[in-house]
Amino acid sequence: MEDCKKAFKRYRLRPRMLRDVANRQFSTSVLGHPVSFPICISPTAGQGFADIEGDKATAKAAESLNTIMIVSNCAFFTYKDISLAAPNAMLWFQMHLYKDRAVTRFLVTHAERAGFKAVVITVDAPVIGNRRGMKRGVMMAPREKYRMVNYYDPNNPEIRSAIANGDISLWEYATDQLVTTETWDGIKWLRGITKLPIVVKGVLTGNSAIEAVQAGVDAILVSAHGGRQLDGVLATIDALPEVVKAIKGSGVEVYMDGGVRMGTDVFKALALGARTVFLGRPILWGLANDGENGVKKVLEIVRDEFSLTMALTGCSKLDDIKASMVVHESQYLSKL
Amino acid sequence: MEDCKKAFKRYRLRPRMLRDVANRQFSTSVLGHPVSFPICISPTAGQGFADIEGDKATAKAAESLNTIMIVSNCAFFTYKDISLAAPNAMLWFQMHLYKDRAVTRFLVTHAERAGFKAVVITVDAPVIGNRRGMKRGVMMAPREKYRMVNYYDPNNPEIRSAIANGDISLWEYATDQLVTTETWDGIKWLRGITKLPIVVKGVLTGNSAIEAVQAGVDAILVSAHGGRQLDGVLATIDALPEVVKAIKGSGVEVYMDGGVRMGTDVFKALALGARTVFLGRPILWGLANDGENGVKKVLEIVRDEFSLTMALTGCSKLDDIKASMVVHESQYLSKL
Amino acid sequence: MEDCKKAFKRYRLRPRMLRDVANRQFSTSVLGHPVSFPICISPTAGQGFADIEGDKATAKAAESLNTIMIVSNCAFFTYKDISLAAPNAMLWFQMHLYKDRAVTRFLVTHAERAGFKAVVITVDAPVIGNRRGMKRGVMMAPREKYRMVNYYDPNNPEIRSAIANGDISLWEYATDQLVTTETWDGIKWLRGITKLPIVVKGVLTGNSAIEAVQAGVDAILVSAHGGRQLDGVLATIDALPEVVKAIKGSGVEVYMDGGVRMGTDVFKALALGARTVFLGRPILWGLANDGENGVKKVLEIVRDEFSLTMALTGCSKLDDIKASMVVHESQYLSKL
Amino acid sequence: MEDCKKAFKRYRLRPRMLRDVANRQFSTSVLGHPVSFPICISPTAGQGFADIEGDKATAKAAESLNTIMIVSNCAFFTYKDISLAAPNAMLWFQMHLYKDRAVTRFLVTHAERAGFKAVVITVDAPVIGNRRGMKRGVMMAPREKYRMVNYYDPNNPEIRSAIANGDISLWEYATDQLVTTETWDGIKWLRGITKLPIVVKGVLTGNSAIEAVQAGVDAILVSAHGGRQLDGVLATIDALPEVVKAIKGSGVEVYMDGGVRMGTDVFKALALGARTVFLGRPILWGLANDGENGVKKVLEIVRDEFSLTMALTGCSKLDDIKASMVVHESQYLSKL
Repeated sequence: MEDCKKAFKRYRLRPRMLRDVANRQFSTSVLGHPVSFPICISPTAGQGFADIEGDKATAKAAESLNTIMIVSNCAFFTYKDISLAAPNAMLWFQMHLYKDRAVTRFLVTHAERAGFKAVVITVDAPVIGNRRGMKRGVMMAPREKYRMVNYYDPNNPEIRSAIANGDISLWEYATDQLVTTETWDGIKWLRGITKLPIVVKGVLTGNSAIEAVQAGVDAILVSAHGGRQLDGVLATIDALPEVVKAIKGSGVEVYMDGGVRMGTDVFKALALGARTVFLGRPILWGLANDGENGVKKVLEIVRDEFSLTMALTGCSKLDDIKASMVVHESQYLSKL
Repeated sequence: MEDCKKAFKRYRLRPRMLRDVANRQFSTSVLGHPVSFPICISPTAGQGFADIEGDKATAKAAESLNTIMIVSNCAFFTYKDISLAAPNAMLWFQMHLYKDRAVTRFLVTHAERAGFKAVVITVDAPVIGNRRGMKRGVMMAPREKYRMVNYYDPNNPEIRSAIANGDISLWEYATDQLVTTETWDGIKWLRGITKLPIVVKGVLTGNSAIEAVQAGVDAILVSAHGGRQLDGVLATIDALPEVVKAIKGSGVEVYMDGGVRMGTDVFKALALGARTVFLGRPILWGLANDGENGVKKVLEIVRDEFSLTMALTGCSKLDDIKASMVVHESQYLSKL
Repeated sequence: MEDCKKAFKRYRLRPRMLRDVANRQFSTSVLGHPVSFPICISPTAGQGFADIEGDKATAKAAESLNTIMIVSNCAFFTYKDISLAAPNAMLWFQMHLYKDRAVTRFLVTHAERAGFKAVVITVDAPVIGNRRGMKRGVMMAPREKYRMVNYYDPNNPEIRSAIANGDISLWEYATDQLVTTETWDGIKWLRGITKLPIVVKGVLTGNSAIEAVQAGVDAILVSAHGGRQLDGVLATIDALPEVVKAIKGSGVEVYMDGGVRMGTDVFKALALGARTVFLGRPILWGLANDGENGVKKVLEIVRDEFSLTMALTGCSKLDDIKASMVVHESQYLSKL
Repeated sequence: MEDCKKAFKRYRLRPRMLRDVANRQFSTSVLGHPVSFPICISPTAGQGFADIEGDKATAKAAESLNTIMIVSNCAFFTYKDISLAAPNAMLWFQMHLYKDRAVTRFLVTHAERAGFKAVVITVDAPVIGNRRGMKRGVMMAPREKYRMVNYYDPNNPEIRSAIANGDISLWEYATDQLVTTETWDGIKWLRGITKLPIVVKGVLTGNSAIEAVQAGVDAILVSAHGGRQLDGVLATIDALPEVVKAIKGSGVEVYMDGGVRMGTDVFKALALGARTVFLGRPILWGLANDGENGVKKVLEIVRDEFSLTMALTGCSKLDDIKASMVVHESQYLSKL
C-alpha cells in the first residue's frame, strides 16, 4: 500500500493555462449508471467495527452524493437491510467464487433481489495473504464478532450448523469457502447464472486483463487488495496503463483502487486510463470519525480537490484529461 | 517548492579551467531594460506583513542595485506611492485578468501612469490552490489587514461598496475577481488596451508557451507559483528547457522563478536558457530581516555567488554560459 | 549483505489470477537428490556458538524437513558424527582448496566415507576479507574455541603438532591453508580425486561461471559470502541472471544465497533462474533461538511464505514460475 | 566532497575467482618515478595546524613508504627544510600561477634547488570558492599563523614589506597573487622556465584535459579541490573516465583525488583509468592523530585494503585491473 501511495507521487502534472474552466463537468457513468464524480467506494470488510451503522451509513453517504458503493461480503447487514437504508444508492456487492457453488448462487440471488446492480468478484485471494501485522498482534479484528449475515442460508445444512455455533463458526465457514482451485471458468459459470454485470477485482497485468475479457467480464478493477495479499506486488497506478492498453477496444471498463488519497491522484488515474477510482481506507477513516457524515466529508474533500485539479490543469470536462498531462518523473529525473 | 529546490541539485556543473575571468560582465537587459545582473524580484503578496515599508522598501532595494521588481497586486501601497519612493526603480506590476474588465483596465491604467514598465499576468491561478498549510492554521496572513489599495477605483460602485465595508471586503472582492473562464483571448484583449510589454507568469509546458507566443506576449516567466497552486506539478528548472525549445526563434524572452537560492542556481537557469531568474521567498526573508537593506543583502549574496560561479566555470560574460556546462546528474548516475 | 537484501525489494511480482493452485507442488531435485522445497541451508561457521548441538541440530532439522544442508569446514563435529546424528539427512560439505593437497584429500575422503553427497568449494576467499566489525571488536567469535575437528588427521605431522598446541593452533593452521595461488586447475585436480559432485560457491559473474563449467563443476552457488568478503560487490540476485544466461544449456545447476529472508525472495530467485536458494543467517537465528526446532521453524516459515506466493501468483508447480512474473522496478520507475 | 565519496559507492565490483594472487604486484611508476603503490599524497594547506612537524612529518612518511607527496604552497617549512627532513622522499610542490611572474619563478627555482621532482599547478582556483563553513565560523584556521615561508624572497620589495608586517600580511599577499586572468598560456610560459614535469590539478572535463595536453602538461590530476571551490560540481570518479578517454594516446598521465577512503576506491579509480590516486583529508587525519606514524598508518591501511581488493577480484598485477571489473550500479538498478 505504501508503494501504491508513493507511486502516485512519481507522476507529475503538466498543467495547461488559460482555459475556460468555470463550468467543470465531472459527472460520468460507470457501467452505464450515472455518478456525480469518478470517485467510488471500494469494498472493505467489517465496517461495523468503524461505526455501529457500518455499511448502512456508508451506503447512505453514497446515496446522498450519488456515487457507487461496493458492499463487502463481510458486511454486518444483509443486502436487503443496506438497500432499504439507502434505497436510491447505487450498490454493488463483492464476493469470491466460493467452493460451494450453492453459496455463491445464494449470495448472488439475494443481492439481485435486494436491487444490487453489479457483482464484484475478488480474484486475488485464492488464499488469505500473509498479514504479518495481524500475526504480530498489531491489530486483529475480533473474528467472533463478524456477523456474516449475508451467508444465512436456511437451506444450507453446513451454514445452519455454523450459525448454530455462533458467528465465529460462520466466519470460519466463509473463509474456508475461498477456493484455490478457481479459474476463469468460474467467471463463465457466474456469467450463466446472473444477468448482473460482472466486475473482477485484483487484476494487475495485461495478461490477466485479457483473460478477464475473454471470460466475459464487464469491468476490471485494478487493485492490489490494499497491499494486504502479496508483498512486493507492483503499484496499481503503475499497473493501470498496461491493463488499459491490453484490453483497449474491448468495451470493458477499467477502474483502479490503491493509494488514492488526493484529488490529484484521481486526476492521474483518469489520465492514465481509469474510468473511475475507488477509495478504500479513506472511507473507513471517515466512517470511524463521523459515520455517514464522515464518509460524505471524505468523498467531498477528494471530489473538491479533483475539481480544483481540473481547474488548475485547464480541464472543464473529463475528456480534457489527457495522458499527456501526466508524466512519469523519470522523464525529468533522467535525461539520457 | 521543495522539488523546485531539489531539482536544481540534480544539475551538475562542468567547469572550464584557466580562462581569463578577471573582468566578469553580467549586466544584461530584460525586455530591453538594462539590469545589473540577471536576478530580479518576483511578485509576492503582503510584503507589508514582512516590513512596515513593504513594497516601497523592496522597490528601493531594486532601484539601488538596478534590477527589476514585480509589484504584486496585493501591495499595500499604490503604484504611485511605490514609484515615488523609488523613482528610478524598474517596476513591473503583477495582476490577473479580472472578471470585471473595468477592474483590469483600471489597474493597468494606474500602473502605466505611475511609470511601471510591464504588466505581468498570472495565468496559473484561475482559482486559488488548495493551501493545506493555511487550512490547518500553520500560517495565515490576516486577510482583514490586506490593504488592496490599488483596487480603490472611486468610479466602481462595487469597489466603493467594498471599501465602505473595510479591507477584508475589498480583499474578498479582489479574490472573487479571479476568473475561471479566462482564456488566451484575454491576453489578446489586454494587448489591445496597453502599450506595455506583457509577461505571462505560470507557464510550465512547451504547449502553453506556444499559446502564449501566439497570444502576443513579450515574455514568459516559467513559474510554479511558489509550489502553492497545484500539488505534484513539475519543477520549474525541469520545465525550463522545454519552454525555451518550444518558442525558440520567436523573440519572446523566457525567465524562471522557483527554488532559486544560490548563485549556482542562477548559473544553471541561464545555462538552460533563462534570460534572467526571479527571486521570491528569499526577498521576503531579507525584507523581514532588515527591510530595504535586507533585500539588498539577499540580492548581493546571490549576485556575488553567481559572479563567483562564473569565475570558477571560466565565464567572463553571460554568453560564455553554455548549456554544455550544466549536465543532468542522470548522465553520471546512469551508464546505460 | 544489506544490498543483497535491498536488491530483492527492487524486483516486483506480477501475479496471475484465477489459476487452480489448490495443489501446489514445490518439491524438486538438487543435483538429482529430491528435496521437499527449493530452500536449502548454506554453510555457516561456528554453529556450535549458536547452540551446543550446532551442526548436528541443523542437520536433524534438514533431515526432518528433507532438504539439503551444507556443513561448513568449521563445524565442531566430525562429518561422521553429524551424519550419525541425522542419518537420512542430505549433507554436503564446504571447504576450500587447501595449500596442502593432502589436507584437501583427507577432508574429501572423510566426508565421502561419512556419506556426504557433494563437495562445495568456496572460491571467493583466497584470503579472508576485511571484516571491519571484527577489527573494531563489535563481535568476534573466540577463535580458541573453534574445534576444527574435521582436520584431525593423525597422519599429518603439522596437524598433529597443531592439535597438541590446542584448538587455536589448529584454527590458525586451517586459516593458513587458504591459498592465494589457487586456480581453476585446482577444481580439475579435485575432479580427479572424487566421484562426488562439485559445487563452486562464490561466483558472481558470467565469465567466472563459464570458467567453472569448463573446469567441470556440477553446480554453481552464486554467493557474496554474506557480504563479508569484498565491499561494494554486486548483489547476488542482481548477479544471478547473468550467471544463468552465461552457462545456459550446460546442464550445470545454478543456486543462490544472500539476502533471502522471505518466501517472495525465494520466488524471485527461482523466477530469475535459480534451481534453489540457500539460507545462511536466518538458519543461525533459528538455531540460536531454539536449536533444531528453531531451524525447522525458520525453514517452515520461508517454505509456507513461498507456497503462499505461488498461490497468489497463480503457480501450482515450479515450472509455472516464469521470468516474466518478476520485473525489475526500473521498468516502472523509468519510462524513457 | 560528500558526493565524491558517494559516487564511489555507485560503482560495484565484479570479482574474478580462482586466480593465482599469491604474489600481488602493485608498485608502479608515476611520471617515471617508482612508487610502492598507486596511492600518493595530495597537497593540503596548513599541515602545521595538524602536527607541529607538519609537512616534514608527512614527507618522512612518504619517504618511508616510498610514495609521492605533493607539498602545498602553504607549507610552514621551506622546500629545503622538508627536503632535508626526508632526503629520499619523492616530493612535488603545488602552487598557482601567480599574478607576479617573479613570485612564480622564485618558488619554482627554490623547489627545483631543493630537489623537488614536479610542479603541480592548481587550475580550479582563479578565486577562492565560497566557503560557507568558514563564513559561519564553523572552523577557520587562524590566518595570522600561516607561515608562508616559501614566499620569503628577499629580493622582492613587496614580500619584504609583507614579511615586516607579519605572517598574516604575507598570507594576504599570497592570496592576492591568485589571478583571475590566467589562461593556458601561463602553463606554456611555465613550460619555458622549468625542466620539471608539470601537473595540472583541478581538471574535471574532457575539454579542459585536451587544453591541458595542448598546453604541454605531463600529467592531469582530476580533482574537485576537496569540494571546497564550487558547489554542485561533478564527482571526480564520475569525471575521470571522460578525462581519460579525451586524452587517450597522448602519453599524459591521469590521476585523481576526491573521496578516496578505502582500498576498493583505489581499485575503482584505477579500473576507470587513473594511474594513481591521491589522498587529501585522510592524510591530515593521520597526521593530526599521530604525526609521521599516523600518516604511514593511513597509507598502510588503504594500501592493504587495495591489496586485499586485488586478491579478492583475482588481480595479481595492476594490468589485471580492467574497466570491466567495475560497473556502475545503474547497470543493475535499471533493466531497460
